[in-house]
Amino acid sequence: MTGGSEDRLSGERVYHGRVIDVDLDRVRFPDGSVGELEIIRHPGAAAVVPLDTREGTSQPIVTLVHQYRYAAGRFIWEIPAGKLDPGEAPEVCARRELEEETGLRAGRIEALSKIYTTPGFTDEVIHLYVALELEKGPTRHEANEFIELHELPLARVRTMIEQGEIVDGKTICGILLADRWWNGQSQ
Amino acid sequence: MTGGSEDRLSGERVYHGRVIDVDLDRVRFPDGSVGELEIIRHPGAAAVVPLDTREGTSQPIVTLVHQYRYAAGRFIWEIPAGKLDPGEAPEVCARRELEEETGLRAGRIEALSKIYTTPGFTDEVIHLYVALELEKGPTRHEANEFIELHELPLARVRTMIEQGEIVDGKTICGILLADRWWNGQSQ
Repeated sequence: MTGGSEDRLSGERVYHGRVIDVDLDRVRFPDGSVGELEIIRHPGAAAVVPLDTREGTSQPIVTLVHQYRYAAGRFIWEIPAGKLDPGEAPEVCARRELEEETGLRAGRIEALSKIYTTPGFTDEVIHLYVALELEKGPTRHEANEFIELHELPLARVRTMIEQGEIVDGKTICGILLADRWWNGQSQ
Repeated sequence: MTGGSEDRLSGERVYHGRVIDVDLDRVRFPDGSVGELEIIRHPGAAAVVPLDTREGTSQPIVTLVHQYRYAAGRFIWEIPAGKLDPGEAPEVCARRELEEETGLRAGRIEALSKIYTTPGFTDEVIHLYVALELEKGPTRHEANEFIELHELPLARVRTMIEQGEIVDGKTICGILLADRWWNGQSQ
């Protein structure tokens, strides 16, 4: 077991798409056996939990986006997020997507973790951040991006997760990690 | 905005794979405009957090799988999970995958939530469960499934998430939701 590209013996690009590509790779497994695997190649992404912690609020306020997702067939709740541009550092992407989608500029940004969204079939990694010291400016939404912004208390967002109103994986990870991070900071 | 299949005007299957298919769909967006979107079709999956809460343990013990994932290029920590068979109910899949991967039979299983793993490009949904009243039997691993089983205290698993040792999205969602569920039960 060597890990990474050493396990790839050969590969064929069976689909070249706009966001993703599909490769059919011939790979060596940890026991030395050889087989074929299909894998969706994705450039990676960053997602960010914007926490407004101004004095006078009893708890942080989170800005969520309510976004139309064709794959879900409806609007779903998400934290601001987007794909990495070629060569773009994840933190730069997080700041850019936050500003584009919500108009918020972060005075401070902290890494929470990174996640493989679904490692059984894609190499997509999302880098998760919490953004603080927020200042509001204009948004810049892309074409075919249907987004409403909502400011909600962190406790309300936790309840939305527990009651199944929030169903986006990166958002559940990001919010629950930011909640633990915030509780660690404020103790 | 009608939601679901009503937004699909036409579509073309551009790749038919073993686990996933890729469709290029012509869709109507919420503002009435029309465009093309590529979407990975996935049958859906179930994942389960096995919690051993026997008396005498100060806190629940979680069984995790340490599994080789080619997409990650290494072994990563996950909760037991797998794809739905055609027509299979998510809870039946959760029980089946738990037993196949860990040998554990659940006397009780509770739904935690469901997640879209990465709704920007796939319709994959993972149904998340917590499994209790566990009895140990034999495992049945599939070919090309390289799995080690580890029993870890829930607090240790939370720390592994916070320290970035656990990077699988469904696992972070499942563990943090199971932790909140357990704290709600045991109060």
